[in-house]
Amino acid sequence: MSKKPVQIMETVLRDGHQSLCATRMRIEDMLPQLDALDSVGYKALEAWGGATFDTCLRFLGEDPWERLDTLKAHLKTPIQMLLRGQNLLGYNHYSNDVVEKFVQKAAQHGVGVFRIFDALNDVRNLKVAINAALHCPEKPEVQGCLVYTISPVHTNETFVELAKELQAMGCHSICIKDMSGLLKPYVAEDLVKKLKAALDIPVELHTHCTSGFGHATYLKAIEAGVDVIDTALAPFSSDTSQPCTETMVRALEGTEYDTGIDVQKLTPISKHFLAVKKRIIQEFNLKGYFDINPNVLDFQIPGGMLSNLANQLKEAGMEDKYQDLLDEMPRVRKDLGYPPLVTPSSQIVGTMATFNVMSGERYKMVPKEFKDLARGKFGRTPVAIDRDFLTKTLGIAPEDIIEDCSVEDAKAKTFAEFEAELKEKGFLNPSEEDILSYALFPQVAEEFFQNHYQKVTAYKKA
Amino acid sequence: MSKKPVQIMETVLRDGHQSLCATRMRIEDMLPQLDALDSVGYKALEAWGGATFDTCLRFLGEDPWERLDTLKAHLKTPIQMLLRGQNLLGYNHYSNDVVEKFVQKAAQHGVGVFRIFDALNDVRNLKVAINAALHCPEKPEVQGCLVYTISPVHTNETFVELAKELQAMGCHSICIKDMSGLLKPYVAEDLVKKLKAALDIPVELHTHCTSGFGHATYLKAIEAGVDVIDTALAPFSSDTSQPCTETMVRALEGTEYDTGIDVQKLTPISKHFLAVKKRIIQEFNLKGYFDINPNVLDFQIPGGMLSNLANQLKEAGMEDKYQDLLDEMPRVRKDLGYPPLVTPSSQIVGTMATFNVMSGERYKMVPKEFKDLARGKFGRTPVAIDRDFLTKTLGIAPEDIIEDCSVEDAKAKTFAEFEAELKEKGFLNPSEEDILSYALFPQVAEEFFQNHYQKVTAYKKA
Repeated sequence: MSKKPVQIMETVLRDGHQSLCATRMRIEDMLPQLDALDSVGYKALEAWGGATFDTCLRFLGEDPWERLDTLKAHLKTPIQMLLRGQNLLGYNHYSNDVVEKFVQKAAQHGVGVFRIFDALNDVRNLKVAINAALHCPEKPEVQGCLVYTISPVHTNETFVELAKELQAMGCHSICIKDMSGLLKPYVAEDLVKKLKAALDIPVELHTHCTSGFGHATYLKAIEAGVDVIDTALAPFSSDTSQPCTETMVRALEGTEYDTGIDVQKLTPISKHFLAVKKRIIQEFNLKGYFDINPNVLDFQIPGGMLSNLANQLKEAGMEDKYQDLLDEMPRVRKDLGYPPLVTPSSQIVGTMATFNVMSGERYKMVPKEFKDLARGKFGRTPVAIDRDFLTKTLGIAPEDIIEDCSVEDAKAKTFAEFEAELKEKGFLNPSEEDILSYALFPQVAEEFFQNHYQKVTAYKKA
Repeated sequence: MSKKPVQIMETVLRDGHQSLCATRMRIEDMLPQLDALDSVGYKALEAWGGATFDTCLRFLGEDPWERLDTLKAHLKTPIQMLLRGQNLLGYNHYSNDVVEKFVQKAAQHGVGVFRIFDALNDVRNLKVAINAALHCPEKPEVQGCLVYTISPVHTNETFVELAKELQAMGCHSICIKDMSGLLKPYVAEDLVKKLKAALDIPVELHTHCTSGFGHATYLKAIEAGVDVIDTALAPFSSDTSQPCTETMVRALEGTEYDTGIDVQKLTPISKHFLAVKKRIIQEFNLKGYFDINPNVLDFQIPGGMLSNLANQLKEAGMEDKYQDLLDEMPRVRKDLGYPPLVTPSSQIVGTMATFNVMSGERYKMVPKEFKDLARGKFGRTPVAIDRDFLTKTLGIAPEDIIEDCSVEDAKAKTFAEFEAELKEKGFLNPSEEDILSYALFPQVAEEFFQNHYQKVTAYKKA
């Protein structure tokens, strides 16, 4: 019937609860509906990666690898994970062999779609992960991301160039990753048209409803030919999460873009997850609901973080400086070469702007993280940072400026080093998965092994 | 610049807080931002009518007429009110002279746009109010409504026919009133195109985000040529309220539909109303946030009411009948000639369906309100109700079936009768406004006069 069916990628098992409920959904919350989810006809189910790995170990007492096995045992629909390139799921750059091993293991355990992004859109940070995924014998889909942002140097044309690079690197598909909900409907239409004209591979759109554009942006992207949209089932949709699955399915029903999904199948699944959401909100004392905030477009900093910064000013008795802070943030971002604002760059820019306003002198106190981002430790910023700003204003020694961040990666610990370290700590026969958990979150993983792992005792010293 | 600018009707002062915060906003909450709101460039500000009149008297200790005076003193932007035709703002049909007097007084006090609707789309219930408004010396805009619903007998074509009737009755503009958020984007596009082709007067679209379509529906309606959209400032938008003003202004910026509104002007106003919302939620112990609920399309009954009905079943130990209830509701609506489901018809249908399911025998117990709606007391249902159903199933005597509801209106109390009644109760020199308040909400108004009115003492007996 449908001439140009749109496919749906469902996020309820990952970004939905990460966006609204601090990633606190347990595997037990998912299990009762996995078979039902599997029968819907989704293009993929995003269910791993992002913040889920950390949260499993840190807060939920769950082994993320076991969660993946359980998911895989119930799902024929491809399982998608979100991977931060050379950062994997952690907060540092890892050595190439750790990245490769992680990707291989994830594919072995059931990841069918690797969505890979770099916060700075520096493709050098994507190369190892993309190549590793391309060479997995399980032949997963490898998806490269355009991390969407707005700045004087970002245009739809620059994003098309980036997409062409990702295609040339072998990516099977491209995702426009609009993590802050900045993509306006008619801009999305133009961007998707240009991407479809320039590429031979499918284009997927991922947005959040933070500014309220979500559903409208999807509609215009669909009319422009987008192949896949990311949505979340009703209870875990909207606000700072994805647009709603049921809403999009119904909006497209009977049109040339009809998804072919039977919306009646979704109702009992959503009913289950509404109860899950209510329980999580109560158990972890979460807010769970967020006001729409179109001002994100000006500051690109989520409302929650803005309130925190405003609070810092207030506590310092500088409430009257709030407008100065709002004005300072775009200036700091400019000094830093217009990075997309996503964790951790959003915090880094926000904190620096607050310091500047509070001390009354710009860059008097500069946090280490700001210097690291400025000197290229995490990759190339969209615009090269002024040399004088680096050396004179920030006081960075010329030899500390990093032109090629992959050289840094080479200095990172190898898989064998993490293994040795773990053994030294008394875990004698760790599995490769455990070594990877430890490589990503050393303290959290160690504590997890101590507290939650029956099998740990088997390979623990003494 | 803009070739086809879209106008914005702002609902923060009426439907925004009615939808999210039980209509509890006070005039004091509005006052600090009235000048700012006035300078935005809105087509109109909806600020009176709907549930505000009742809530002022019942919960807020405010005289609604005085609120209107205060609003008018600060606003050059036309003040819009929502009026339920022959029902005015109350729950009964009023006599023609009460309707006429009410409309005249409202125009005198500052209403610049009368949005007039009838829950059954029975134009006979609109005639008196429309004519009265057309003859006001203040020359207000008179807007007729299409109460949007979905049923086997409602099509875009039937709505166009209704719109043509309203235009012929002298309405200056037409509003598609989608109070349950049922209007899907591509259906809206088709409906607006058809209306624009058939009419010579402007078309306005009013929707709610209940099912998640809101912003996308506006976009398609705008592309189809709609003249005005109704939006609410961010804190009072989304969920069960209107789409967000800032979101729509930004989405259209730089396009041929650019509203011309400076979004920066809206930021401080929204900041104020966010604080107001937080205070109201706390003061009145409200929820304030609602989950997106695309299932409204199937049952057309808001989620809150569905849960109440489910609770009734539960308390009766009949939880397992929930699906039966969901199946029964559309059957009851069919028996009743497919009325749009809006207060009070939604409650009437829901309660009847629950009775049917609980008693295990359809129409064994029939509430009076159901019989009244069925026998035509409130006007003509979209489809004529089966005669046997009326007389045999419901047991309504043939002489109680009302063909012409305006005959009923003639039996209602006249303005003079209300005046006499009020005097009899001891209020000797009531103003015409007080008589109207009393006519609409007798008990509530009387209590209000006793408790809140200084001037009442002046004309009170003894």
